[in-house]
Amino acid sequence: MSQFQPARGTRDFLPEEMSRRGYIIDSVRKAFESFGFEPMETPAFESWELLSKKGSGGDEIRDEIYYFRDKSDRELGLRFDLTVPLARVVANNPQMKMPFKRYQIGRVWRYDRPQAGRMREFMQMDVDTVGTERMDADAECIAVAFEALKQLGFSKFEIRLNSRKVLNGMIEFAGIPAKKSKATFRILDKLEKISLGDIKRELKKAGLQSGTVTKLMHMIGVKGKPAATLSRISRQLKGIAIAEEGLRELGEISALAKSYGFGKNLVIDFSLVRGLDYYTGPIFEISVTAGKNVGSVVGGGRYDNLIGLYGGRQTPATGISLGIERIYEIMKSENMFKDIESRCLIFVIAVNDAVRKQVCDIARRLRKECLRVEADVMGRDMRKQLEYANKKGACCAVIVGPKEVKSRKYTLRDMKSGRESKLSLDSIIKKIC
Amino acid sequence: MSQFQPARGTRDFLPEEMSRRGYIIDSVRKAFESFGFEPMETPAFESWELLSKKGSGGDEIRDEIYYFRDKSDRELGLRFDLTVPLARVVANNPQMKMPFKRYQIGRVWRYDRPQAGRMREFMQMDVDTVGTERMDADAECIAVAFEALKQLGFSKFEIRLNSRKVLNGMIEFAGIPAKKSKATFRILDKLEKISLGDIKRELKKAGLQSGTVTKLMHMIGVKGKPAATLSRISRQLKGIAIAEEGLRELGEISALAKSYGFGKNLVIDFSLVRGLDYYTGPIFEISVTAGKNVGSVVGGGRYDNLIGLYGGRQTPATGISLGIERIYEIMKSENMFKDIESRCLIFVIAVNDAVRKQVCDIARRLRKECLRVEADVMGRDMRKQLEYANKKGACCAVIVGPKEVKSRKYTLRDMKSGRESKLSLDSIIKKIC
Repeated sequence: MSQFQPARGTRDFLPEEMSRRGYIIDSVRKAFESFGFEPMETPAFESWELLSKKGSGGDEIRDEIYYFRDKSDRELGLRFDLTVPLARVVANNPQMKMPFKRYQIGRVWRYDRPQAGRMREFMQMDVDTVGTERMDADAECIAVAFEALKQLGFSKFEIRLNSRKVLNGMIEFAGIPAKKSKATFRILDKLEKISLGDIKRELKKAGLQSGTVTKLMHMIGVKGKPAATLSRISRQLKGIAIAEEGLRELGEISALAKSYGFGKNLVIDFSLVRGLDYYTGPIFEISVTAGKNVGSVVGGGRYDNLIGLYGGRQTPATGISLGIERIYEIMKSENMFKDIESRCLIFVIAVNDAVRKQVCDIARRLRKECLRVEADVMGRDMRKQLEYANKKGACCAVIVGPKEVKSRKYTLRDMKSGRESKLSLDSIIKKIC
Repeated sequence: MSQFQPARGTRDFLPEEMSRRGYIIDSVRKAFESFGFEPMETPAFESWELLSKKGSGGDEIRDEIYYFRDKSDRELGLRFDLTVPLARVVANNPQMKMPFKRYQIGRVWRYDRPQAGRMREFMQMDVDTVGTERMDADAECIAVAFEALKQLGFSKFEIRLNSRKVLNGMIEFAGIPAKKSKATFRILDKLEKISLGDIKRELKKAGLQSGTVTKLMHMIGVKGKPAATLSRISRQLKGIAIAEEGLRELGEISALAKSYGFGKNLVIDFSLVRGLDYYTGPIFEISVTAGKNVGSVVGGGRYDNLIGLYGGRQTPATGISLGIERIYEIMKSENMFKDIESRCLIFVIAVNDAVRKQVCDIARRLRKECLRVEADVMGRDMRKQLEYANKKGACCAVIVGPKEVKSRKYTLRDMKSGRESKLSLDSIIKKIC
């Protein structure tokens, strides 16, 4: 074993796993493109000033990202998401046609404590729609993620929906000073990680009064089907303008959900907060259930102020992000990768060294018609070539010897059954490509 | 305009350019897979110790890469290629089946002076075959790159081939001490960037005698068709064991080139050196010519010591790398992206707000059959929707109004000709999907 390991919090993806990740990425990308989203890419690192700006990462991001300086002492950091770079790009390109609908699939880095399924380097798959305040865009982003997951084979979903505006209204209603709202959100965001008791203790420690905490916790505990849940909380928050606006928006998304096909999966959940500072409106998460696995694999929301914050024209935007790592883990444990395991690899086998040139030619010819064709590059004998082909999962082998070359009929061997037949190259292509 | 720009030496890729880059990546990936290479990924950063090890990057890499420390003071650096990480992975996985044929497409970072077409962040597309000393693997790597370029539409190639062994033999023959060979290579590697006179001056400055320099420069000036060139230099280097070994290997690759289909494009060029320390055997580059553009877009070679150097079992390996940036520039200037511009986007248009739900349904239905289907999310009127569809390059529009909904016949508009026809959804799908 080598003394050199991947850096802490990062890992390698060997072919078996990587093929499956590639399958996920390709399927998701296809779903993104099917809605008219277009690809974009941004650098792996950004200026530190951008990443740590109040409203993007904010002060608290300092402990959570990789920071470095280039050789001219410029302060830089590895990107921690794909939304901040998108907002920078839009701010820099005022000529852009709106709506700007882009997708980006790429790695991001966060200096979290590494733990099972949570690395410091991970991949996000994002769609965002920039340039409209309409809830149609939010609904469409949810729909894209929903379709992507369906195409991967998931069938049980819960789409949880909340709104930062409603949460702000609740904070106002509970009598919490506005300047404490961010700290409050940050504590509430831990709801899935720490106990309710701990949340309450932390809120009190942050200076909230006991009655206030009870009031707040009561409201954020409300969860259920859209119509009933929204009307119930509407009565409570009546007269609080920001909450009413947020609830109206949630109502709009709920109505659109039916047209977009995810109406039945939608629930309103006022405990959903989402960690990042930049959200301003609806926020959403999608969990999937497969077998015994439940996982939140998608998250997103609206951020109407971020682009303006970076010096661009004030431009509303919303988006959603799929995390490949959890999707992969669930699909793996539920054996949902059947499709790709059937992609055929054809191995062309040289019976002896005299026919290696012909093997090369035949492989080249097959490659024009078939997906994946391999031949030996190690000078191995026939038995070892067959062994390797088998280990690599080849579905069939084309065996080439001097007799075959003369007769122009080659032995086609089904690697599973071991059955063999003699066929011309054209017939082989017809049969297996 | 925003105050926030991409970090120096990096840039954004907006959709138009990114779609084209995606097309290149997809085509190259398909070529890689067609030869049985499998995907692998490694982290963006590696331990500094690995990157700067003598034989991988070596001392001189210090000035050329992004260096940083994580919060536990571990020394790290952004990877400068995909070969060093591959060698680390193989060293760490002694159970791997050989040959290990992997491809990796990913970003790398080098702290060069940014200049036109040369960024500090760029993308490499690599195939490597690990586990065999046979020249079949080298020939196959060249063939993969060759096929990938052909599939992108290139037709004029020059494949330049040399060998580090032959170069070492020449250095021995010229009477240069072995310990000066690396410095000599590094100077020779500048042949395409600085003048012959400057090269000679630098070699003398490095302590080489005038006669030695003349002798060396004469030999590396030899270039031409394999058979004649190899036999000519063989006579000169007769008796120098390392050179004879190298020349025999080049002869083998030249013979295999015919079977692999690139025999006509191969030249032996003893001035080819390639910058990195780790090469041990054959080295190669592919240049393409398209219109007035000539560019070296592919490079690679054999590195039989790298994996052993990292503490793995001594394992031979060879590989090749395609640079997307130059390929993109040439394809763009020669208008070689026709294919992707014809991918059809269908826009479903709402005549008024009353039919938005139906538009949503129709878009969803079409999306099941067609590639890319978009509908308005901005609440725009019909005229503006058509304008946007046009700007985004939609090939046709399906126009939905109350009448259409009632009759279940929708207006299909060809966006280029403006021609319209009334059709059922099934007929529309048959016609355009």
